[in-house]
Amino acid sequence: MKAVFRFSIVVVLSLFLVSPAFAGKKVHWKLAMTWNTNLTPFATAPLNLAKMVKEMSGGDFTIRIEGSEKHKAALGILDMVKGGQYQMGHTASYYWKGKDISTVFFSTIPFGMNVEEQYAWFYHGGGMELMQQTYDKFKVLSFPGGNTGVQMGGWFQKEINSLADLKGLKMRIPGMAGEVFAKLGVNVTNIPPGELYTSLDRGTIDALEWVGPAMDIKMGFHKIAPFYYTGWHEPATELQFLINKRAWEKLPEEYKAMLTTAMKAVTADMFIDNFAGSVDAWKKMKTDYPNIEVKTFPKPVLQAMKKAADSLYNDYAAKDTNFKKVLDSQRAYMEKARQWTNISEYNYIKTMKELTE
Amino acid sequence: MKAVFRFSIVVVLSLFLVSPAFAGKKVHWKLAMTWNTNLTPFATAPLNLAKMVKEMSGGDFTIRIEGSEKHKAALGILDMVKGGQYQMGHTASYYWKGKDISTVFFSTIPFGMNVEEQYAWFYHGGGMELMQQTYDKFKVLSFPGGNTGVQMGGWFQKEINSLADLKGLKMRIPGMAGEVFAKLGVNVTNIPPGELYTSLDRGTIDALEWVGPAMDIKMGFHKIAPFYYTGWHEPATELQFLINKRAWEKLPEEYKAMLTTAMKAVTADMFIDNFAGSVDAWKKMKTDYPNIEVKTFPKPVLQAMKKAADSLYNDYAAKDTNFKKVLDSQRAYMEKARQWTNISEYNYIKTMKELTE
Repeated sequence: MKAVFRFSIVVVLSLFLVSPAFAGKKVHWKLAMTWNTNLTPFATAPLNLAKMVKEMSGGDFTIRIEGSEKHKAALGILDMVKGGQYQMGHTASYYWKGKDISTVFFSTIPFGMNVEEQYAWFYHGGGMELMQQTYDKFKVLSFPGGNTGVQMGGWFQKEINSLADLKGLKMRIPGMAGEVFAKLGVNVTNIPPGELYTSLDRGTIDALEWVGPAMDIKMGFHKIAPFYYTGWHEPATELQFLINKRAWEKLPEEYKAMLTTAMKAVTADMFIDNFAGSVDAWKKMKTDYPNIEVKTFPKPVLQAMKKAADSLYNDYAAKDTNFKKVLDSQRAYMEKARQWTNISEYNYIKTMKELTE
Repeated sequence: MKAVFRFSIVVVLSLFLVSPAFAGKKVHWKLAMTWNTNLTPFATAPLNLAKMVKEMSGGDFTIRIEGSEKHKAALGILDMVKGGQYQMGHTASYYWKGKDISTVFFSTIPFGMNVEEQYAWFYHGGGMELMQQTYDKFKVLSFPGGNTGVQMGGWFQKEINSLADLKGLKMRIPGMAGEVFAKLGVNVTNIPPGELYTSLDRGTIDALEWVGPAMDIKMGFHKIAPFYYTGWHEPATELQFLINKRAWEKLPEEYKAMLTTAMKAVTADMFIDNFAGSVDAWKKMKTDYPNIEVKTFPKPVLQAMKKAADSLYNDYAAKDTNFKKVLDSQRAYMEKARQWTNISEYNYIKTMKELTE
């Protein structure tokens, strides 16, 4: 009997020795999203994150995902993660521009970098460090969380041929792009997503911006507005994972590694998911509604937008040193990155386009 | 004593119950790369994969990375993974075109998809399934493993103004692109990487293709050839992780999840790593060697290349049903995906380019 007892103690001890430090450590987190649970592909990223983390930890580390239909605080994610009500959030950085204007840079800005350029800036141009410095005061960690790529400029009831056509135009367009349009005389409004279709259909607004074909098609705008403008205002809208700093610090190292690895994986997946969605949605829109006219704003209009955007950035930079620091960093990186984009990705598509013309 | 014994059994059992299934299960794999360990950013992907997997498993799942300087079989990776000598490999699919011509599609083909289009095809257009069907006979699993983006068309000693300039030109360019050039009268050769600089410098060859600024700068070609041609032949060269099927099947589910998640993460990282490397290398090349001339082949030359490529693909398709199946799938996907690329990513860069002209 004594020998068996000794043996069982050895078994117990050796189990502790061979098991990883986190083995059996149950961690259950909650993540709040800005979006409804059914808003694919945005919601797909955190849902897949939770699935990956659960599988990798053998079910010991779980993350319960709550959409805005449950917590009713779509734009309260930063506060809820900061307060520890949720350990994580999935949202977009530019929603916090009322708290800190520099947060816009970690989503996208009008006439900013495209998706490769922006990730290169995040990971090799100092962007991650600048983002974390900006979020330190909220006691949260911020990570990339998926990207929409170039968003479309929006649906318009009438063609925009000159700056005069913008004056008094009623348009739903949020963020920095809204501020740019306001400078050009657009009557910028914000309207809840659920009311957008009716507002455009009834003429309460003359135009609106949403995302791109993958997400626009579900809203049905292509049925009621003939002009679909190309993008200038959100060239690489990055979504965001937020993590409460105290919760993060308490995580076993293995779970930290699982979380950062899974965030990278779902971030890459979401970009491709949305791209593929837009490929199919654009084909369907063109097939079912062959009269949709894809337009690019005329050069004088774009020049005025660019001028308005630059003056807006310079005004903010004059008042806010962190804004200036991030702006200078993005401008310098984009200046050199665009030279490579121009001779690689851009030139390749141009070459093929010209071959078939 | 009896009570203690009973208690210790309960402890032993409960430890099994709360620990994940894999806890304490030591798995040590080996991965062979086509590249030397110092060939960044290619080698960075598997090196980071091993680091992530080790961290996530608390050191229980390790992968030892061996470069070609050790195993001396850069182009033997598929055989070694198939044979179980290594559980994993990191390489590129088109190296196996001698074993199965369809493998080229899972790297890149001349005038093929760009990087977003190709990942969309892999994950949402049936590409992953077609790749696995192609690799089933080797008893290995195949996964994306990083991407170079659009590769440059190569370094040339003299300008190519017409098809006549290609006749008899001695050039190092491997793969499908080499077959296309051969059809146009180029004297295509292959030369080991270590001899490329001397061959170009001494006139043994008149031109060569390598990758892009990030990797070309280390070879020094910009010091000895004045013309740098833009790409047409490798628009999105995907690297490849290979896994021995039996080794995979024996992995605990948790480790399978860690491996697939980490492969996705390092695949995304490697693309950005290489992009950022090219951004910096291109700036440095232009600063140190301001006379480098970036050229795009003239339209008649590109048209002849396109015609040669299409006829090559059609010839292979006539002889090989799997080749035809994958070709048809890529052609159909690219046809619809490029429409979206043209109005999103391409149009955005074009718009900004025109604004500053």
